[in-house]
Amino acid sequence: MKPMIVFFLLILASCKPTPVPLSVSNAQQPHDPVKETIIDGLSRPWSMVFLSEDEVLLSEKDGDLLRINLRTGQKKVIRGFPQDRFDTLLFRKAFSKPRTFPASLPDSTKVTYNAGILEVLTDPDFQNNQQVYISYVAKGEGGTTTKVIRAKLQKDSLTQIQPLLVATPFSEGLFHYGGGMAFGPEGKLYITVGERIFNELDEPVLPVAQDVTDRRGKIYRLNPDGGIPDDNPDFGPDAVPGVFAIGIRAAQGITLEPETDQLWFSEHGTRQGDEINVLQAGANYGWPVVTTGGYRGMEYEPPTIEGAEFTDPIWYWLQTVAPTGLCFYTGNEFPLWKNNLIVPGLSRGSLWRIRLEGETVKSLEELFVDDRERSRKAVMGPNGKLYILTEDLQNRTNGKIVRIKPE
Amino acid sequence: MKPMIVFFLLILASCKPTPVPLSVSNAQQPHDPVKETIIDGLSRPWSMVFLSEDEVLLSEKDGDLLRINLRTGQKKVIRGFPQDRFDTLLFRKAFSKPRTFPASLPDSTKVTYNAGILEVLTDPDFQNNQQVYISYVAKGEGGTTTKVIRAKLQKDSLTQIQPLLVATPFSEGLFHYGGGMAFGPEGKLYITVGERIFNELDEPVLPVAQDVTDRRGKIYRLNPDGGIPDDNPDFGPDAVPGVFAIGIRAAQGITLEPETDQLWFSEHGTRQGDEINVLQAGANYGWPVVTTGGYRGMEYEPPTIEGAEFTDPIWYWLQTVAPTGLCFYTGNEFPLWKNNLIVPGLSRGSLWRIRLEGETVKSLEELFVDDRERSRKAVMGPNGKLYILTEDLQNRTNGKIVRIKPE
Repeated sequence: MKPMIVFFLLILASCKPTPVPLSVSNAQQPHDPVKETIIDGLSRPWSMVFLSEDEVLLSEKDGDLLRINLRTGQKKVIRGFPQDRFDTLLFRKAFSKPRTFPASLPDSTKVTYNAGILEVLTDPDFQNNQQVYISYVAKGEGGTTTKVIRAKLQKDSLTQIQPLLVATPFSEGLFHYGGGMAFGPEGKLYITVGERIFNELDEPVLPVAQDVTDRRGKIYRLNPDGGIPDDNPDFGPDAVPGVFAIGIRAAQGITLEPETDQLWFSEHGTRQGDEINVLQAGANYGWPVVTTGGYRGMEYEPPTIEGAEFTDPIWYWLQTVAPTGLCFYTGNEFPLWKNNLIVPGLSRGSLWRIRLEGETVKSLEELFVDDRERSRKAVMGPNGKLYILTEDLQNRTNGKIVRIKPE
Repeated sequence: MKPMIVFFLLILASCKPTPVPLSVSNAQQPHDPVKETIIDGLSRPWSMVFLSEDEVLLSEKDGDLLRINLRTGQKKVIRGFPQDRFDTLLFRKAFSKPRTFPASLPDSTKVTYNAGILEVLTDPDFQNNQQVYISYVAKGEGGTTTKVIRAKLQKDSLTQIQPLLVATPFSEGLFHYGGGMAFGPEGKLYITVGERIFNELDEPVLPVAQDVTDRRGKIYRLNPDGGIPDDNPDFGPDAVPGVFAIGIRAAQGITLEPETDQLWFSEHGTRQGDEINVLQAGANYGWPVVTTGGYRGMEYEPPTIEGAEFTDPIWYWLQTVAPTGLCFYTGNEFPLWKNNLIVPGLSRGSLWRIRLEGETVKSLEELFVDDRERSRKAVMGPNGKLYILTEDLQNRTNGKIVRIKPE
């Protein structure tokens, strides 16, 4: 006889007040996940942050910064976005089909433009200060680059805009911006910036991601006002301000692990080499000197960097995933997913659940392989619900907010 | 207040006999899986079948057919194995290191010998007739090939041995034997036989897997006595007896889905192209004309087969897995795994859980990625427990029976 039945029978037999075993009430039947579209018709959604149980701030890469009510479906464009924003709509009108990069390589190895509005974050004290943080692709002399601003969100307008980071130089290729942002447990702002070139093709003598005097290919740690924290790692007197880690190629996703206060980030490889990393102060993640994948220019031989020590990824895939805006699952709807890493992938529209024990990957599940959508970002709601931002796999239209819920 | 607590309080308050809600006793806290080694020191275990709750019959590819008591650990060699068995121990003694194939290709693309004892099955009516079925690599004029016998298991000896299938011709290469076996729901015996060559290198005008007059590269359906069922599909007057499906490269795993009575089989690709298929009467699985992977001889162009229709796999991987002895999970220890396909992989020691809805793959989980063992076979015990047969990933020693249990 099952212990639970024995327990019930004991209650029935004795008819005495017996302590209620609370664990029983927590027993949950496990369920498989299904998708529910909450909002559609978005223009390549990149990032989303909750303002309340029902309201989110959402960045469309090719559209606007929006306030959306998930309950009513109402969308409002946030006004006052900086004028130096690279306008992807104008860009798309200028070409009969999207330009791809790098121009010298076969189509199958190219990427389309990554430019647009990228991450949107609220300040940890947003309820009191209404500060928001936005990374986007800004125009400047010679091209574009990754820019981060802080602004006050007032009456659906951005006001008191302050630039926090401009990852100069501006340059022509519309790719490898990075732009991922997260707040650390200590209230500092972490920002990923991509290398902005195809290193294997341009072959600078010292790769930009390894060059501490170059703003590209780095992860930054800033005070919320853009100041440089005193306790940042020391990359030497010539290092650009705010550098926290180097050797980055095209990291787009960065997130805080609530249980450990560690930051994790995803990194795009070129031929495979897609990775998950734990962020460490002063670390060098190796690009392009070491990579778990290959190089786009197959013949490329990276230079040796004297004295460099490289930090290995926690995980790398043997197939192309293009992992992006990851997050830790903190809800209760899927008991086995607790503190698992949820990783959306742009390539082939994949969504991954990674079970960890500390910094060790125990298992990986690829979800919804029969219903592939290009997935850019996973977000936990304040209600413990999991959402992903998606777009159509083939033509990248009809961006959606999708809730992942138990069957 | 949670419904369960309310229910308990109602019982406590009323003190009347109340019907016990049985569903509550079924509520199970979900758990992650861990491994427990049950038996070790085996010599490349290939297959296992339960004789009782505690006893199994196990085939060692490079060793013996064994009866093993999982409770006591006692191992007994089954006597009377046919003398025409290819002896892998003699073979290994003859060479300072294992020979690899094909000789003409670089080491990285070679396979080691696949020869030895392969599948062992018991008759569905084993308790009454003591019949067992064994596939193994037999010697003959010109080399070796896949052979299937039926025998009576009496006092730990094989007696009354009958050959059921000899996949002639005998040939030199020690690879691509197939040898997977399963009983269908109708009591027929299904057998996979590999193509026994590297088609891309040997380039026969008509690939053997597409040639119905050739015994290689096929799946067979036989009566338990080796006779040909009247209702087998018709591959024409020249077809070899018992053919049920064609276009097979190196399928090793075949299993019955209890819920649907369908047979599923795994197939090794060469450069990727590892697949999961549903077995259909008369189907052509395409090798080497169509494959989801590449070819070992990169320049190979397969011939066109006039009028051929090919059956697509249910799933293929983008990375090399070398999927082998799969089974359906039918236990209760992992509620979410019910009727999932458990697929061991030889390559990199992988173990996969595939969640299906009908013939659609919903999600795939790669398990134990931090504890890789070369996994050959997954087996459900009569007790609803899941076991896998493994060996050391690097040197292929210390074969084990491993139980997968809740944490």
